[in-house]
Amino acid sequence: MPDFITVEMIDDLATGAAFLGTGGGGDPYIGALLCRAALEEFGPVRLMEPDNISDEAAVYTIAGMGAPTILVEKLMSLEDADIAVRALEHHLGKPASAIIAAEIGGINSMLPIAYAAMRGLPLIDGDGMGRAFPSLQMTSFNLGGVACAPMTMADEWGDHVIIQASTAQRAEDLSRPLVAALGASAMISCYPMTGREVRSSAVFGTMHAAYAVGQAIRDHSSLDKPTDGLIKLLNDLPLYGGARCLFEGKITALERDTTRGWVFGQCTIAQLQGDEVAVVSFQNENLSVLVDGQLRAVVPDLISIVDSETCLPITTEGLRYGQRVCVIGCHAPRVLQTEQALKVMGPSAFGLPHIYEPIKQQ
Amino acid sequence: MPDFITVEMIDDLATGAAFLGTGGGGDPYIGALLCRAALEEFGPVRLMEPDNISDEAAVYTIAGMGAPTILVEKLMSLEDADIAVRALEHHLGKPASAIIAAEIGGINSMLPIAYAAMRGLPLIDGDGMGRAFPSLQMTSFNLGGVACAPMTMADEWGDHVIIQASTAQRAEDLSRPLVAALGASAMISCYPMTGREVRSSAVFGTMHAAYAVGQAIRDHSSLDKPTDGLIKLLNDLPLYGGARCLFEGKITALERDTTRGWVFGQCTIAQLQGDEVAVVSFQNENLSVLVDGQLRAVVPDLISIVDSETCLPITTEGLRYGQRVCVIGCHAPRVLQTEQALKVMGPSAFGLPHIYEPIKQQ
Repeated sequence: MPDFITVEMIDDLATGAAFLGTGGGGDPYIGALLCRAALEEFGPVRLMEPDNISDEAAVYTIAGMGAPTILVEKLMSLEDADIAVRALEHHLGKPASAIIAAEIGGINSMLPIAYAAMRGLPLIDGDGMGRAFPSLQMTSFNLGGVACAPMTMADEWGDHVIIQASTAQRAEDLSRPLVAALGASAMISCYPMTGREVRSSAVFGTMHAAYAVGQAIRDHSSLDKPTDGLIKLLNDLPLYGGARCLFEGKITALERDTTRGWVFGQCTIAQLQGDEVAVVSFQNENLSVLVDGQLRAVVPDLISIVDSETCLPITTEGLRYGQRVCVIGCHAPRVLQTEQALKVMGPSAFGLPHIYEPIKQQ
Repeated sequence: MPDFITVEMIDDLATGAAFLGTGGGGDPYIGALLCRAALEEFGPVRLMEPDNISDEAAVYTIAGMGAPTILVEKLMSLEDADIAVRALEHHLGKPASAIIAAEIGGINSMLPIAYAAMRGLPLIDGDGMGRAFPSLQMTSFNLGGVACAPMTMADEWGDHVIIQASTAQRAEDLSRPLVAALGASAMISCYPMTGREVRSSAVFGTMHAAYAVGQAIRDHSSLDKPTDGLIKLLNDLPLYGGARCLFEGKITALERDTTRGWVFGQCTIAQLQGDEVAVVSFQNENLSVLVDGQLRAVVPDLISIVDSETCLPITTEGLRYGQRVCVIGCHAPRVLQTEQALKVMGPSAFGLPHIYEPIKQQ
């Protein structure tokens, strides 16, 4: 991957990010639209590796917060994003020297690229999850001791809120009800960091990884089985690995409930030939896969649903009855697998009864 | 009334403020406790008349926000109040030169006294309502063109939020869901003002008025009918007037629903001798009195329920089945009666079907 993100890379990047977003993190079509327009207007974005970040750099995140179901209909703008970041810069008295994504997802890794382009700032090749998660405290930044607050939230009316909370969980608790009041989605900037803090807490290489995943998905048609190339690539990426197809079949039932600022639900998938049934549960992101009641994969491992033919990732809000899909799983980045991490982003953090075990190779 | 508020004045002030708070604005017992402790520790508070406020003075409000039912159980502290005001001072870069109450009520006019004592600042003899109202946009400050935001909210954990909203209604919409997240009550500071803005928008003389009302209530026992002195005083106060007993009887039914950060409900009162029945509806504050279906009084006029024997005001959360009560009404300050004001704090603003008419003298 080159040192710059250019317009030509956007489609692959958005597709790959949507896959790593495990159902959440926003629609890649919208993410790509936003990003393409920004790069065409403002030019390529310089990608920054950890070694090039100075200790005292002021690094800001930008993300959309809310149920992805809403983000599809209520488009986000860079102007709203700018209100959120500028309010935080102003509050802290420190202008941004670089931008970093909070999570990897179809919108939430594309928005920071577009925003960095608009501001003429470098983007760090990394994020705070190495995937997507539904809550603010579920970040490697938090695990690394970086404070989530002060954080800012902005809406499309130019209104904004600055939250000063003592813990990331408390920032989550205060910001979530505001998402609804701000119109079910909002632009946020949280975890303002120094370069030193970024280096010690981010999951690095995820922009590279998303681009490679997107390329592997685009190249699917030359293969016997469309998902083979993607699975091979994931197994080759040191950040992930442990990839396999967990289940393949047709979607036979779907439940979605957009409440409390998230979309909760589950997707039932039946084998085309065979009697096995899989249930994928989600809260914005896919959380677990049970096949005939047996756990095949659970957070923080990545669980993504892709179209069996095109290999394209399907986000939570894109799931439809009758779709032929393959459920692909792979290991979470190692930093999400520690005992400390599992308390914050493991099964129990989502109220799930399962014990985390990394996906087993067949 | 002297130029200083002293410990000896607290009980009368709290009682009078609770009466003018028309059922809301908090419990006078708690307001008096908080205030007495502060004045004993920090000394008397200088009361400031409009003429003594300099144009460039930086005037801040402090208030409790939330359902009064909660404020009774979850006590407020001056430390939390300080977080809210200091956060706003810091955000604006302007240290406070005076404090003003946002509304008159058992807690919400006592808290600013206590806070002014702690900070050694003068308190302006006035507020933004001349009574209490349940929503942030329902102030004379708003009618006078003062912006509600930036506003701050603080909880007992030291967490706080700064809201920048384009209208007072929007500040209300954004802050209300946060009240629940902050524990169903929060300390807020809103409508930061210059001295010039205070002079052109506040309802003045309400601290004086509350003190006089409290004294009249204390002196009730020397009279044939306990409420006579209070009604006479209200009719003598130029700010109010039009006072009378709207109904007298026994509480026979009560409904309360603490949702969305407010307490909604109604209180049914039956005559002791006679068949008439009155219904008082409230949203934190008493909104209307209907006697056998006929409107006797409606917001913005003041409607307060007092104990028939002691003449002490009963707040919304203090109402109990079987209480012998007198419903006393009086006119709202004139600034709340204009056409513009009625849109913001008249019957339609509360979803009531009535047309506002000032209480008629019998």
